[in-house]
Amino acid sequence: MMYGALEAGGTKMVMAVMNDSGEMLGSVSIPTKTPDETVPEMIGYFRDKGITALGIGSFGPLDLNPASPSYGSVTESPKLSWRHFPLRQAFAEALGIPVMIDTDVNAAALAEYRLGAAKGKNSCLYVTVGTGIGGGLVINGEPVHGLMHPEIGHILLVPDLEDPSPDGFCPYHTHCLEGLAAGPAVEKRWGVSGRDLPEGHPAWALEAKYLAQLCANAVLSFSPEIIILGGGIMQQKHLFPLIRREALRLLNGYIPEYLFGDGMSGYIVEPGLGTASGITGAYLLARGRS
Amino acid sequence: MMYGALEAGGTKMVMAVMNDSGEMLGSVSIPTKTPDETVPEMIGYFRDKGITALGIGSFGPLDLNPASPSYGSVTESPKLSWRHFPLRQAFAEALGIPVMIDTDVNAAALAEYRLGAAKGKNSCLYVTVGTGIGGGLVINGEPVHGLMHPEIGHILLVPDLEDPSPDGFCPYHTHCLEGLAAGPAVEKRWGVSGRDLPEGHPAWALEAKYLAQLCANAVLSFSPEIIILGGGIMQQKHLFPLIRREALRLLNGYIPEYLFGDGMSGYIVEPGLGTASGITGAYLLARGRS
Repeated sequence: MMYGALEAGGTKMVMAVMNDSGEMLGSVSIPTKTPDETVPEMIGYFRDKGITALGIGSFGPLDLNPASPSYGSVTESPKLSWRHFPLRQAFAEALGIPVMIDTDVNAAALAEYRLGAAKGKNSCLYVTVGTGIGGGLVINGEPVHGLMHPEIGHILLVPDLEDPSPDGFCPYHTHCLEGLAAGPAVEKRWGVSGRDLPEGHPAWALEAKYLAQLCANAVLSFSPEIIILGGGIMQQKHLFPLIRREALRLLNGYIPEYLFGDGMSGYIVEPGLGTASGITGAYLLARGRS
Repeated sequence: MMYGALEAGGTKMVMAVMNDSGEMLGSVSIPTKTPDETVPEMIGYFRDKGITALGIGSFGPLDLNPASPSYGSVTESPKLSWRHFPLRQAFAEALGIPVMIDTDVNAAALAEYRLGAAKGKNSCLYVTVGTGIGGGLVINGEPVHGLMHPEIGHILLVPDLEDPSPDGFCPYHTHCLEGLAAGPAVEKRWGVSGRDLPEGHPAWALEAKYLAQLCANAVLSFSPEIIILGGGIMQQKHLFPLIRREALRLLNGYIPEYLFGDGMSGYIVEPGLGTASGITGAYLLARGRS
């Protein structure tokens, strides 16, 4: 059996065809333009590949309530041309096969849970820290949707006293995580892209403090068995030890430290699947529980 | 079949015997002293009741990892005589029946999920706001344990600019929820017990702001389908509309408001089972999935 996988991102669409064993038989990436321009090209790619199901991990927000008339549609996205676009339905109608959809980050969390850094655990939080900040969550073996789906990038954080831009840069929220710590926030605060900030720059100690607040609040709120941090900003690998140390400082022994293992080195970790978590998760959505 | 239920609290132990239909056939409450004083009395109560299983919803923290040698024990509790007491094991050995255990708040969340305000939902957050603040969580149909279990009372909040005690009163954390908003924090901040503060006192607007931060961060972090607030402080029913209004203000439309229904009036709610959520949850633990 062959499966299609689509990782629908704000800047590019990654498509792949994979077999039962999870081998990738082909993959292509195209820029994300308007639905009118992009969707027919994607459908064209999948149409003659003999796939029996398609999985989509998409930017959001999405309507993931199966009982809703707009199930599988993009909802209030800042990408205006995609707002209210019936993403799942467009592929289901054109291809005539089952199409499964979840957020890009829930797909990545699912892939890490089944095949990556969280394999063997019962729950995981996957957070991507890049142009935006988003989180996917697997608990009790299933991705979490709930009322809508997690939007952990927008939790409210305590601004750091030494932050020159303590309100952050989110148009919706004063001092939310994304507004304080996503790539654009780093660039606006320091006037340079994160890529050009050296390892010892105070930007990184501050970044680590905010990501540590995220991790501490996640531990306290829903107690994931592991936290996986991916995305462009986390290519700064030197952030990991800073985040772990600060998270332990914030928790201050309230959660016994032995539960986290050695200094959280196995608790706050890089993705086990590298940059392939998203597309792998889309494939797993297509496969279902099999 | 008859089932035993124990709601183990810091000040009292509530025991009940219930039948298959959930009818309570007897109930008794005794003060919580040391394990040596309290446990034999509890065992004596249950011993001749013909129960086939016992469910315990207990104050924590607890070891809830079934693979752990100390599964079902109290761990680093501030109640020193109970620290490392093998609660589940003590009853299992004395009564020779299956004993199921979870946190008091997870038991309450389970009861609200199966029989109370969250009936028909797929997830719920139950928070008790009283002498302490604790939260139980049901997601994808099961109580959430994860690494340990949620300790949502200790998430870090942004102190309010008008709070005369913005650091709060938690011995572990500066400005965590419990330290800012539990009953003792209200009393320390204002010099009067919450019971004696009139409805218009600024204490309540502040209290609502902190509980709204909890609710907003919960929505963003793990997207529960409903949030249930119980406990002594929430007897101040006038808090509910204040919390809902402030939570909507904090979210600022990022999560579409129609998802919450009318002004969150059905989203941030009182317990459907009143003060019986905890003991009912202990009974449901005893019954298992049946």
